[in-house]
Formats: sequence, structure tokens, C-alpha cells
Amino acid sequence: MRDAFHEELDAISETLVEMTRLVGSAMARATTALLDADLTLAESVIDADDQVDDLQHSLDDSSFDLLARQQPVAGDLRTIITSLRMSADLERMGDLARHVAKVARRRYPQSAIPPEIRGTIVEMGDIAAELVAKVGSIIAARDVEAALALEAEDDEMDRLHRSLFKSLMDDKWKHGIETAVDVTLCGRYYERYADHAVSVAKRLVFLVTGEHPTPAS
Amino acid sequence: MRDAFHEELDAISETLVEMTRLVGSAMARATTALLDADLTLAESVIDADDQVDDLQHSLDDSSFDLLARQQPVAGDLRTIITSLRMSADLERMGDLARHVAKVARRRYPQSAIPPEIRGTIVEMGDIAAELVAKVGSIIAARDVEAALALEAEDDEMDRLHRSLFKSLMDDKWKHGIETAVDVTLCGRYYERYADHAVSVAKRLVFLVTGEHPTPAS
Repeated sequence: MRDAFHEELDAISETLVEMTRLVGSAMARATTALLDADLTLAESVIDADDQVDDLQHSLDDSSFDLLARQQPVAGDLRTIITSLRMSADLERMGDLARHVAKVARRRYPQSAIPPEIRGTIVEMGDIAAELVAKVGSIIAARDVEAALALEAEDDEMDRLHRSLFKSLMDDKWKHGIETAVDVTLCGRYYERYADHAVSVAKRLVFLVTGEHPTPAS
Repeated sequence: MRDAFHEELDAISETLVEMTRLVGSAMARATTALLDADLTLAESVIDADDQVDDLQHSLDDSSFDLLARQQPVAGDLRTIITSLRMSADLERMGDLARHVAKVARRRYPQSAIPPEIRGTIVEMGDIAAELVAKVGSIIAARDVEAALALEAEDDEMDRLHRSLFKSLMDDKWKHGIETAVDVTLCGRYYERYADHAVSVAKRLVFLVTGEHPTPAS
């Protein structure tokens, strides 16, 4: 049986997994809202972000409390400090989903996404969803191997991001500046979302092994 | 006289101030590189960002070490945890300066910034420099009042950011999509830089008082 202290550490890990679920659902719904110009859905994403912020605050409070009461060292200390950072990444992923939803809301009743790049945005949304689902399993299972493999999927997001810019710069672009601005911002939001997902996975590697997966991580 | 533990806390605070200097200088030089299409300067900003990352890593290591060795509680614990977060914000500000420098490099020998919006970018650079200089003094003096006043200056950055978008959407915009994309991204980088500066100031308020300056901070 786990002692009370380790049960509290488990609770922190469960909160992180719950945050991956919320920010995953937020980005999936934001993507649909963006593609379908669905105002109600966009607003529900914008409103729901408070839940993620609340989870982060409660995780921060319990971590601080655990540090003060239990004065953990070595691996347990590393777990708490690293969890604080993971929650900051996840909170930011929630913000980025909200930003995508805000673009959808700003352009309603039009869709911000012209037909030629719908496919790219669909793929970016799919990869975002896949990344964050994997991050949830990685945290739950403390799966270092899967965490290390995650970076390859971020490469796929970078490829899509470059392809988005290529479409924008194409001489055949007929959608004007406003749409170009929205597409630029959305591309950046998806790319940052994926970066943070990879960052959470890297932190899990550090949490478990005490080693940073790459020098610059 | 300060004991050894509090001298180590002071050293952490000095590292944070040094980080504000580096990321302030980086954004000032990146702005000049962007406006003057100065490739050498842009590359020096890109290369120098490693220094900021190194400082963050060394601050993280000493914080972790202090937590493990000294098992601080209450205000001292809060100081260390909060400093870790401030260093993460400052590291990100360094990244954003590097991003601006990369836009300058990508468009060399042209400037990415057309004449009509030069003034806005100059002002954004000035406000960024002012914000980060103030943040340095705020950390050094643990100045809660100045920290609380900083948000007003971020409003000025938001105003400039909106004015940038207005210029982009103007029917008179003649600079095509590529420039619109670059200006959109740069605008976002300056805005995020200012957000992180305000975030560091808010964290200083929490560090000193134990109270978050606003509910959602």
C-alpha cells in the first residue's frame, strides 16, 4: 500500500492527466469551431478554459503544501517541482485552444479557414489531439520510452506548419490579408500547442529518470 | 549579516536580474536588426540566447539544490518556487527576442517592416525595453508597488498591437502577404514578451506578499 505522502503525489499525477483531457477536448472542439464557424462551440471552449486554470491552481497549492509539510528530497522533490512545470505547460495549451476558438468567434459567421487549407488545419487538429492523448497516457504510465518517441510527431506538426506558410505565400492566394493574418496566428497556436505537449513529455522523462532527454530541453 | 542560506537566495535574485538585462538587450538589438535589416546583429541575438538558457539552468540547479539541502518553509519556500517560475518567463522572453531576430534574418537584405509601421515597431521595442528594465529594478528592490503599476504599460503594448493589425487590414496595405505574415508574427512576439514581463512582476508580488495580485494571475 502507498503511504499518505505517495497517495498525494499520485493525486498530483491524476490532476495532470485530467488536465491533458481537458486541453485535448478544448483543442478538438476549437478546431471544429474554427472549421465549421460554430459560434456556440467556440464560446464553450472559451468559457471552459477557467476549469483548466482552476486545476492548475489547485495543483500548485497542493504541491506547495506538500513541499512545506513533507520536505521531500531526491526523486520526490523532483516529482513535485517537475509536476509544477508540467501543469504550467498544460495551462498554456488550454490558453492556445482558447485562442483558436477566439479566431473562430471573431470571424463568425464566416469560417476563418479557406477551403484550400482546410485539410492542413484538420491534420494539425488531429496531430494536436493525438499528441495530447499520448501525453496523458505517458504521464499515467510514467512511460519514458513513449515520451522520447513523441518528438517525431511534433516534426509532423512542424511540417504542416511550413505547408501552411507555403499556401499563404502562394501566388494563387486569393483570400486577402485578414484571412492570412488569422491563418498565421492559428498556425502558430497549433505549433506552440504541440511544442508544449512535447515539453510535458520531456519533463516526464526528467521526472522519472532525473536526466534531461536532450541538453537544451 | 545574512546567513549562508539567505546569501544563496540573494544569488538567485541576482541571477534573475541578470536575466532581465540579457533579455532586455536581446529584444533591443533584435528590434534594431529588424528595422535596419542588420544581419550581423540579428545573428548575434540568435547566438546569444544560449547564455539566457544557461542562466536558467544554473538557477534551476541551485534552486533544486537549496530545496533539497535546506528544506525551506513558508516565505523562503515561496521565494524559491516563485523564482523558478520567473526564470521560466525570462527564458521565454529570450526566445521571443530570438524569434524577432530570426524574422530579420529571414528577410535580409530587405527589412521585414514597411515604412508605415516602422513607428509602431519602434514604440513596441521601446515599451518592451522599458518593461524589462523596470522588471529588473522591481526584482532587485522587491518593489511591490512598482510591480502592481506595471500592468498599465502592458496596456500600451496591447494598444500598439491592435494598431499594427489595423494597419495590416487597411485597404491601403500594399506590401503583400509575406510581409503581413512577418508583421503578424512580430506583433505577437512583442505582445507575448510584454505579457511575460508583467507575469514576472506579478510573481514578484506573490514572492514578497504571498498574495496573488489578481485572481486569475
